[in-house]
Amino acid sequence: MSKLIAEFVGTMILVYLGDGVCANCTLTKSKGQNGGWMVITAGWAFAVGIPALMFGSVSGAHFNPALTIGLAAAGKFPAAEVPGYIIAQMLGGIVGGALVWITYLPHWEKTEDKAAKLGIFCTAPAIRNLPSNFLTEFLGTALLVFAILGMGAQHTALGIGTLFVVFLIWSIGLSLGGPTGYAINPARDLAPRIAHAILPIAGKGGSDWSYSWIPVFGPIAGGICGALLFNVIF
Amino acid sequence: MSKLIAEFVGTMILVYLGDGVCANCTLTKSKGQNGGWMVITAGWAFAVGIPALMFGSVSGAHFNPALTIGLAAAGKFPAAEVPGYIIAQMLGGIVGGALVWITYLPHWEKTEDKAAKLGIFCTAPAIRNLPSNFLTEFLGTALLVFAILGMGAQHTALGIGTLFVVFLIWSIGLSLGGPTGYAINPARDLAPRIAHAILPIAGKGGSDWSYSWIPVFGPIAGGICGALLFNVIF
Amino acid sequence: MSKLIAEFVGTMILVYLGDGVCANCTLTKSKGQNGGWMVITAGWAFAVGIPALMFGSVSGAHFNPALTIGLAAAGKFPAAEVPGYIIAQMLGGIVGGALVWITYLPHWEKTEDKAAKLGIFCTAPAIRNLPSNFLTEFLGTALLVFAILGMGAQHTALGIGTLFVVFLIWSIGLSLGGPTGYAINPARDLAPRIAHAILPIAGKGGSDWSYSWIPVFGPIAGGICGALLFNVIF
Amino acid sequence: MSKLIAEFVGTMILVYLGDGVCANCTLTKSKGQNGGWMVITAGWAFAVGIPALMFGSVSGAHFNPALTIGLAAAGKFPAAEVPGYIIAQMLGGIVGGALVWITYLPHWEKTEDKAAKLGIFCTAPAIRNLPSNFLTEFLGTALLVFAILGMGAQHTALGIGTLFVVFLIWSIGLSLGGPTGYAINPARDLAPRIAHAILPIAGKGGSDWSYSWIPVFGPIAGGICGALLFNVIF
Repeated sequence: MSKLIAEFVGTMILVYLGDGVCANCTLTKSKGQNGGWMVITAGWAFAVGIPALMFGSVSGAHFNPALTIGLAAAGKFPAAEVPGYIIAQMLGGIVGGALVWITYLPHWEKTEDKAAKLGIFCTAPAIRNLPSNFLTEFLGTALLVFAILGMGAQHTALGIGTLFVVFLIWSIGLSLGGPTGYAINPARDLAPRIAHAILPIAGKGGSDWSYSWIPVFGPIAGGICGALLFNVIF
Repeated sequence: MSKLIAEFVGTMILVYLGDGVCANCTLTKSKGQNGGWMVITAGWAFAVGIPALMFGSVSGAHFNPALTIGLAAAGKFPAAEVPGYIIAQMLGGIVGGALVWITYLPHWEKTEDKAAKLGIFCTAPAIRNLPSNFLTEFLGTALLVFAILGMGAQHTALGIGTLFVVFLIWSIGLSLGGPTGYAINPARDLAPRIAHAILPIAGKGGSDWSYSWIPVFGPIAGGICGALLFNVIF
Repeated sequence: MSKLIAEFVGTMILVYLGDGVCANCTLTKSKGQNGGWMVITAGWAFAVGIPALMFGSVSGAHFNPALTIGLAAAGKFPAAEVPGYIIAQMLGGIVGGALVWITYLPHWEKTEDKAAKLGIFCTAPAIRNLPSNFLTEFLGTALLVFAILGMGAQHTALGIGTLFVVFLIWSIGLSLGGPTGYAINPARDLAPRIAHAILPIAGKGGSDWSYSWIPVFGPIAGGICGALLFNVIF
Repeated sequence: MSKLIAEFVGTMILVYLGDGVCANCTLTKSKGQNGGWMVITAGWAFAVGIPALMFGSVSGAHFNPALTIGLAAAGKFPAAEVPGYIIAQMLGGIVGGALVWITYLPHWEKTEDKAAKLGIFCTAPAIRNLPSNFLTEFLGTALLVFAILGMGAQHTALGIGTLFVVFLIWSIGLSLGGPTGYAINPARDLAPRIAHAILPIAGKGGSDWSYSWIPVFGPIAGGICGALLFNVIF
């Protein structure tokens, strides 16, 4: 398998399972409706961990342009491979979003709230304050990349490193996800936002493009700083 | 121990623990009543993981005709062993359902809702739309089998692979279980449905045979596609 | 360290952490009040797993007369050591119950419900039906001992076996705990019940001795059958 | 990396993620508001486990003056290094608290309850009874240190020990956190309390200095006793 197929399929699974838990907790009549923050954050943690185990040995399991760019900025990933990785990740994220739409197909027309339907595909801030929202995404992603590198530098039994990636995603959601919904990954936010825009979702509203650049550039800036901080500290 | 005994006992434990958490969350006066989606999905995750660790070295711990058939279709399991495996799995599922009935014996007559009682033994769709319900079961099982094979192809410390199977089942429930209750396994749906039909459960209603073929053929089709996709990608 | 000290200290920690989560979810003004079934079952799972890791290499980490007797009946533990183990376990359980009382000291007088206070120390059935309650405890403990032996017979990386014991306790609580509160261990039920009887707990009621033999003899019978079943199957 | 940098950065992450989950569950309009006790305790468990894996090989990952002092009292850590460790931990805790303030910046002015805002940074007792509160913190920290040492003395696959530290923190929160909110660590309580006092938090109240010495000296006394008890038992 090529690295790009791994990034494509892995990001597809990540977004399918991640946006899926949002659909389950949000859509009318879904069995997990109003499941709560533990359901959401556990769902995203496993959504990252499962493809990370499957494809880590092939592509490094980035599934996240902020991580790819951060690693390149820190000299840990070849710059020439960055564009291909990002394209694969974005395409995977779009397909993943489409799979959520299909999986929950009869539920979209039963759900009134247009913002809730958008919130299944991408994040929205609890309080719209763009500089603060940017900072929250920046800090969360800096911690994500710093901790991934820091934990990855330790000797652990095979697979335990991925277990702690599950814990890290879970933790960032539990602890830092309150203000912006922790995008911390453009391929998890912009890509399914595009899916939302192009799919014929029953009763959908706008795709909130005015906010869309925050969960892209906040995470990218954070990813770069997190990777550089790792180089300084470790 | 023979493979067939492993499949029988393992599927029995799977259905006993899995249907058990549904009974706990559903039945009147049960201590876990209305426990929520996290309780349900964690219960099913452990229900699969515990017998998977116990019997994986004997039979491969399928416990699921959709997995057995999918593996055979992909050339990873001898076709001649398929019928025996399925019979053992179905018998285990029936006995597992009966154990749930016995364990919660005084609670059945206290519970009014006939559909809720059936829902302990087998799945029902949130919105009855057979093509969509089929597709949801198909996609969930395709991901199940694809990810089991993909994760299983990695080098992990002994037992970590089973830990990630726990996470996978948990994840599918959290993320994809909203529309149909994630049967993703005929031996977890048809077998205890048969138990529901034949056991003298106090105040039971019908066994919803009109829906029963969806969580059989959706998972089988998905399992075949998931296993073939693994052959293509990996 | 002697085996008996390991059994005493380990059972003390088990009951301290296990009854502690019940106190947290039950007592008036406690920060975890009404935490729900996930809190209760996770609390008990860790309550078993932590001392199991600490003392497994010394005494085998039984902490449960039903397990000790079951292993002896199946020829896996010397009968001569059984009485000492049980005495150490029971003393540990009594001290563990006392530690819960001290840890939550100001909360007892604020709590009106006498049955709720007793329910912190020992189990009570959701529906009082002694033959059914016995059967539920019997089945839960049979599964406990059968699965501990079955999982323990597999090759796993060091510590992973204990992780799956955590999952097993969690699972039994989630799936089989609804009717009786899953004592599945006389040292977790009778011992802190004795603590409840002898401690000067503010506003306590009776200790429900009429039910007390069910979570003793149900688990012991189940432990014997689970261990013998392991001998037959594996 | 020096040990002191490891203790500083590790404690910073611990308090950032730990106080972060309290902010998420408490602050008005935060997406995790009223997430419940499972969210709080899981958040703190991962908050400890992630930096423990990252920095354990450098500094031993104390992040807690009560652990540092306890280990020194038991002859397991050089007394000369204690002051530096504690300073690094306290500075890390202050910076961690400040990061929570920044991450949730727009939410502080929307939140009326001054005690709730303080409760994000440091603990407060459910029932104010200083001797009892001291005892609860003493017992919880004694168990923390005793169990860390006891589990650490076992042979486990690399990383599994840290997994059980996650479980231990989760368990103490679930089971013993009800009366005082389980500070069990002065650098998690006094340090962010100082951050609360010096930061310009919108609409903040007092920092409750009259209680502040309980979660400092209770944990230190408990840490010493827990480490000494380990020396006696193991």
